[in-house]
Amino acid sequence: MNNFSFCNPVKIIFGKDSISKIATELPTNAKVLMLYGGGSIKKNGVYSQVTKALGDRVFLEFGAIEANPRFETCMKAVALIKEQSIDYLLAVGGGSVLDATKFISAASCYQGTEAWDIIAKELPLTKALPFGAVLTLPATGSEMNSGAVITRESTKDKLAFNSPLVFPQFSVLDPSVTFSLPSRQVANGIIDTFVHVVEQYLTDANDAPLQDYFAESILQVLFEEGPKALTDPNNYEVRANLMWASTWALNGWIACGVKQDWATHIIGHEITALYELDHAQTLAIILPGVMKVMKKHKGKKIQQMGKRIFGIQAANEEEQIAQTINAVEAFFNSLGVKTRLGEYGIEEKVCAEVAERIKLRGWKLGEHGDITSETVAEILAGRM
Amino acid sequence: MNNFSFCNPVKIIFGKDSISKIATELPTNAKVLMLYGGGSIKKNGVYSQVTKALGDRVFLEFGAIEANPRFETCMKAVALIKEQSIDYLLAVGGGSVLDATKFISAASCYQGTEAWDIIAKELPLTKALPFGAVLTLPATGSEMNSGAVITRESTKDKLAFNSPLVFPQFSVLDPSVTFSLPSRQVANGIIDTFVHVVEQYLTDANDAPLQDYFAESILQVLFEEGPKALTDPNNYEVRANLMWASTWALNGWIACGVKQDWATHIIGHEITALYELDHAQTLAIILPGVMKVMKKHKGKKIQQMGKRIFGIQAANEEEQIAQTINAVEAFFNSLGVKTRLGEYGIEEKVCAEVAERIKLRGWKLGEHGDITSETVAEILAGRM
Repeated sequence: MNNFSFCNPVKIIFGKDSISKIATELPTNAKVLMLYGGGSIKKNGVYSQVTKALGDRVFLEFGAIEANPRFETCMKAVALIKEQSIDYLLAVGGGSVLDATKFISAASCYQGTEAWDIIAKELPLTKALPFGAVLTLPATGSEMNSGAVITRESTKDKLAFNSPLVFPQFSVLDPSVTFSLPSRQVANGIIDTFVHVVEQYLTDANDAPLQDYFAESILQVLFEEGPKALTDPNNYEVRANLMWASTWALNGWIACGVKQDWATHIIGHEITALYELDHAQTLAIILPGVMKVMKKHKGKKIQQMGKRIFGIQAANEEEQIAQTINAVEAFFNSLGVKTRLGEYGIEEKVCAEVAERIKLRGWKLGEHGDITSETVAEILAGRM
Repeated sequence: MNNFSFCNPVKIIFGKDSISKIATELPTNAKVLMLYGGGSIKKNGVYSQVTKALGDRVFLEFGAIEANPRFETCMKAVALIKEQSIDYLLAVGGGSVLDATKFISAASCYQGTEAWDIIAKELPLTKALPFGAVLTLPATGSEMNSGAVITRESTKDKLAFNSPLVFPQFSVLDPSVTFSLPSRQVANGIIDTFVHVVEQYLTDANDAPLQDYFAESILQVLFEEGPKALTDPNNYEVRANLMWASTWALNGWIACGVKQDWATHIIGHEITALYELDHAQTLAIILPGVMKVMKKHKGKKIQQMGKRIFGIQAANEEEQIAQTINAVEAFFNSLGVKTRLGEYGIEEKVCAEVAERIKLRGWKLGEHGDITSETVAEILAGRM
C-alpha cells in the first residue's frame, strides 16, 4: 500500500424527505445564492422543498448552469455574488451544478485579474465561499469531493481543478428525487460512476486488498442494481443503493494508498469539448479501448475484475482479458448507451484531433504516464 | 436503506515513516500533553520519533494510561492539564490511550462538579480540547471515530460515550510500528476488528448491498491477512492491510443506513469489568453465543456471511447457520484465542452475575432491543 494523507469532512444527509434538513445546516443569518440548472427542479418538487427549507433567509437565485458548465456562465454568478454580497452558496442539481458552484465559490474570493488561472495555472486557493448541496442526479460524486470540471467555451478547454477549500459543507441525498430522471441521465450516471471506480482500481496488480474489495463492492452494486433503475424507476431501494454507490465511487477513500489512472476521463473531456457528447458517452466509448491497449499494465486486474464482477472463468489469461473487456462494453450497451465513435456520427479524424490536443498540452496519461498522444490515437482508432 | 446523517472529519496520515508529519499538523504555538501507556513506545522507537517531531514545542508527558483506561487515571491527567494550561493533546498508543485522551479532552473543558456524568448521564458536550493521535495498535478504530469506553474502578462500570467534539483532528497510522506487538495483542486486535464489523452487519436481512459488501470486504481482509500477521510479523503489506481494515471497521461509514447490534460488546464490557479478561477475549467468547441464540433475527445474514466469507455451502439453512457459527469460533481459535468461559477459569455463576448487572442497568440489547437479562444468561450459559 502506498503512503497517503486524506481527510473528507463532508456531512452527508441521506434519505427520504431529507431536503428539509438544510434548514438547520445553513447559518440563520446567511445571505444565500441558490444555484441550479435547466429548471427540472421546478417540475419535480425539489425547488419548492428547498425554498421552504430556506425559511426567512434572504436568498437569490442563479438558475442558468448548463451541462458541462461553462467558465463564462460561472463568472456571471461571481459578478452577482460580489454585487449582492452573498456569503453562502447552495447548489441544487447534479454534478454540473455542483462543479460550477465549487468554481464560483473559489472565483468569488479570488483576488487576481483572471479567474481561469485557478484552473489553468492550478493556483492553490486561500479562500472560498462556504456552500452546501442538494443532489438531484447521482453520477459525478461531486457531492462528497473537492474536485470540479469546468469548460471554457472560448477555447474549448474542459479542465479539472481540486482544492480542499471546495468540499461541500453538507450534501443532501434524497433518492426519491431521482425517480423522475430521464433514462438517458440514469444510464449516464451509472456509467460515470462505474468508470470513476475503474480509474482508481484497474491499474497494476497491487497488495491493497481492502481497496480492491471496496472498489469491487461499488462495481457489483452498479452491475446488479443499475439495470433495475431503468426497468423499475420508482423503486426507492434501488435508487438509494445507486445514489450511495455513486457518492462512494469518487469521495476519495477508495483512491487512498493505490495508483490512479484517469486517462479515460481526460480523453473523454477532449471529445466532449470538441463534439459535445455526453460525458458518460465518451467514457463508454473510451474505457474498453484503454483496457485493450493498456493491458500490459492492467492485465492482472482486468482478469480479477472479470472473475469477481462478471463471473468470467476463461480458459487462459488472454481470453479472460478479452471476455472481460467485452463484458464491460456489453454492460454499457445493456443500459442503452452506444460504445463506438461511429455510432455517434463521429468520423476517423477525431483520433488525430484529440491526439493533437493531448500533444499540445504536453500530457502523458495513465498510472505510468506512458499514454502518449500516439497511444491516444491508437485507443480511439480501435473505438470507431 | 435507513435515513442517516453522518460526517467523519478525521485526517488520516498513513504509511511508513509518517510520524514525522505530526510536525506540520500540530499548531506551532501549542502547549502539548503527550499521553501514552505502559512505555512500549520507548522500546520500539515511537517515543523518540514523536518527541523529535514535536520540535521546539513545549510539551509535557502523561504516561500512565492502563488497558481498559480508568476514569480515576484520566482525572489525574485532567488535573495536570488545568494546572499547566495545556491546550493540545497528543495520544500515542492503542485504543486505550486514544479512548482515555478523548475523555480527558472532554473532562478538561467540563464545568460541572462530577466529570463521570459526561458518561453516566450522556451529557452533550459543548467543548473539548483538540487532539491528534499516533496509533500503535490496530484494533479499536478509535483513531477515526468519536467514541470511547472508560472504566470506573470504584464501581466496576465500563461504559461508552460519544461526541462529535472528540474526533481526533488527525491520526497517524504507520504500520511498521506494529511489527513489535506481542502476538496476543495482534490476535486481540484482529478479533476486535472482526466483531466491530459484525455488530454493524449481522442484523436483519436488509436491502443495503453496498454496506453489506463493504462489511464483507473488511471481514475478508481479516480472514485472509490476519493469520499472516502472526506467522510473518514483519510483513509490511500485511500489517498495512490489517491496520487500514481496523480503522474502517469502526469509522462509522459501514453503519450508515443499517441497523446495529452491539450486544456482544456490551456483555463483554461487563465481563471485563468483573473478571479483567482482555476485551477481545470476551468478544471471542460471546459472539458465537449471540449468533446462536439470536438466529431468529440474524439467520439470513449468518447464512450470507458463511457463504461469502467462509465459502460454506451447506445442505440446508439450519446447517448453513451452524457451520458458519463454528467457522467464526474456529477462526478465533486459529488466532490462539480461547472462546469458552471455562477455558479462562470463569465459573457458571458469571451468567447470573452479568445478567443481574444488565437487569440493574435496565438495558435491553440488540438491534431489536429484545435481548433481556434472561437472554444474556442464556447466551453465556451456552459459552461455558
